[in-house]
Amino acid sequence: MQDADKHLVTKRSQPIGVFDSGIGGLTVAAALRGLLPAEHIYYVGDTARVPYGGKSAVTIERYSLEISRMLLAEGAKLIVVACNTASALAVPMLQRELNVPVIGVIQPGAVAAVAATQNQCVGVIGTRATVQSQAYERAIRALKAEVRVETQACPLLVPLIEEGWLEDRITEQVVRRYLDPILEKGIDTLVLGCTHYPLLFRVLEKEVGPSVRLVDSARNCALEVQAVLGAGGLAAPASHAGSLEVALTDPSTAFLRVAEHSLGLNVGEVRVRPIG
Amino acid sequence: MQDADKHLVTKRSQPIGVFDSGIGGLTVAAALRGLLPAEHIYYVGDTARVPYGGKSAVTIERYSLEISRMLLAEGAKLIVVACNTASALAVPMLQRELNVPVIGVIQPGAVAAVAATQNQCVGVIGTRATVQSQAYERAIRALKAEVRVETQACPLLVPLIEEGWLEDRITEQVVRRYLDPILEKGIDTLVLGCTHYPLLFRVLEKEVGPSVRLVDSARNCALEVQAVLGAGGLAAPASHAGSLEVALTDPSTAFLRVAEHSLGLNVGEVRVRPIG
Repeated sequence: MQDADKHLVTKRSQPIGVFDSGIGGLTVAAALRGLLPAEHIYYVGDTARVPYGGKSAVTIERYSLEISRMLLAEGAKLIVVACNTASALAVPMLQRELNVPVIGVIQPGAVAAVAATQNQCVGVIGTRATVQSQAYERAIRALKAEVRVETQACPLLVPLIEEGWLEDRITEQVVRRYLDPILEKGIDTLVLGCTHYPLLFRVLEKEVGPSVRLVDSARNCALEVQAVLGAGGLAAPASHAGSLEVALTDPSTAFLRVAEHSLGLNVGEVRVRPIG
Repeated sequence: MQDADKHLVTKRSQPIGVFDSGIGGLTVAAALRGLLPAEHIYYVGDTARVPYGGKSAVTIERYSLEISRMLLAEGAKLIVVACNTASALAVPMLQRELNVPVIGVIQPGAVAAVAATQNQCVGVIGTRATVQSQAYERAIRALKAEVRVETQACPLLVPLIEEGWLEDRITEQVVRRYLDPILEKGIDTLVLGCTHYPLLFRVLEKEVGPSVRLVDSARNCALEVQAVLGAGGLAAPASHAGSLEVALTDPSTAFLRVAEHSLGLNVGEVRVRPIG
């Protein structure tokens, strides 16, 4: 066997690195586990500095680079930015700086939205930083210029989810207040532009009604990862038994248990990796 | 003049350093400005890592030490920890590590609560980290052992305040859900154990009704600062025109304008001081 081949064989067994500002990105990790059961996933939640969504581009870029380097030190063969805020603001920089493929959640979400809309009017909800970045507008219009995009920042949804008020009268009212203005604009598709939001799927579905399709990027992101691994000859051998390893930059795990329960994920023991 | 005296004269003109995880501590800065108009106040909000309230003791201690060192580098003659979470978890460590007086908001709040209660039953609301620390229980019972303390973590109040939903039907419902259980326990005094909460004063006042007194630590903290400066001969000469200087570790200032407006503070230009 040639050295280059040996290197590739080794590389195929290395983990996929996944990060989020916190725990929300586990929705993406769950989709990856489902689609790619042979892959080992090393997940880092930057819970010491969560949330990213109200912070500035310069801070979000710096944090994303630090966490990505932590994943590279674990041997990551590919990095998934399982956080819409970091995807919106830091993916181009990460793609320049790192020598492994970097996949964010914006592009897969945009692809899914363009495929779903019938009337060419798409809504996007996310954190303040994601909405202000206009990353979804750019990604959607690059795919299909005539699609109209209506956005709404929803800063309270992540705290409500982390409080565990998932099916709740107050959460319903907050969702209604945020969504009414964009529903009135006639959207037929709504992108859940934050990896926490799938945990509010039922409340969101009830509020938008049957005529609006909800799109989340987790599954589409996993499909893109599959395609990129395949194209690069980087997929783990099918005989492998994959796994999920979770590290957090702060040891508080209150919300982790909410997410684990809702997603049916078995996270097991969590490592603590201080940073910053 | 002796060297030691000269040193003291110089020191008296140095700033009071004040920090919070974010902007909430400006309620304390406002009280300091009102009581001590000759003092220069250098305020740092650690907005790059805000909030502290859901994070662990080890992370909160580390962040508090880093920000305190930033204040010492500005020549702070005394440090005010204008954040209940950091006060609850980091003040003893800061008092050990730093060679200037360190004043938190827990002790002044406890003094005010013990003075206010008639029926010896006090409620405390705060972040999850503050409540879990049991710092208020310890401080209140140390002052008066027979006082019963009922606590309630209110993780959604800070995000609601930062969203600017200060007098709002949804905020009222959230407040009611958090407060009803401790009101039922017969408290006659409620400590606002988070420096953001004075911005919700009207909603909280309406919810608790006229028989419960609201106590916030901002003014009592300023009184303690006055006493410590006086005792150490560190007060600025009365002829000084004091000022408030604000630095943030992240340049996002959306909530700063909410706080400035509500507190009638004139913050002016804000410095950005990246950290971490």
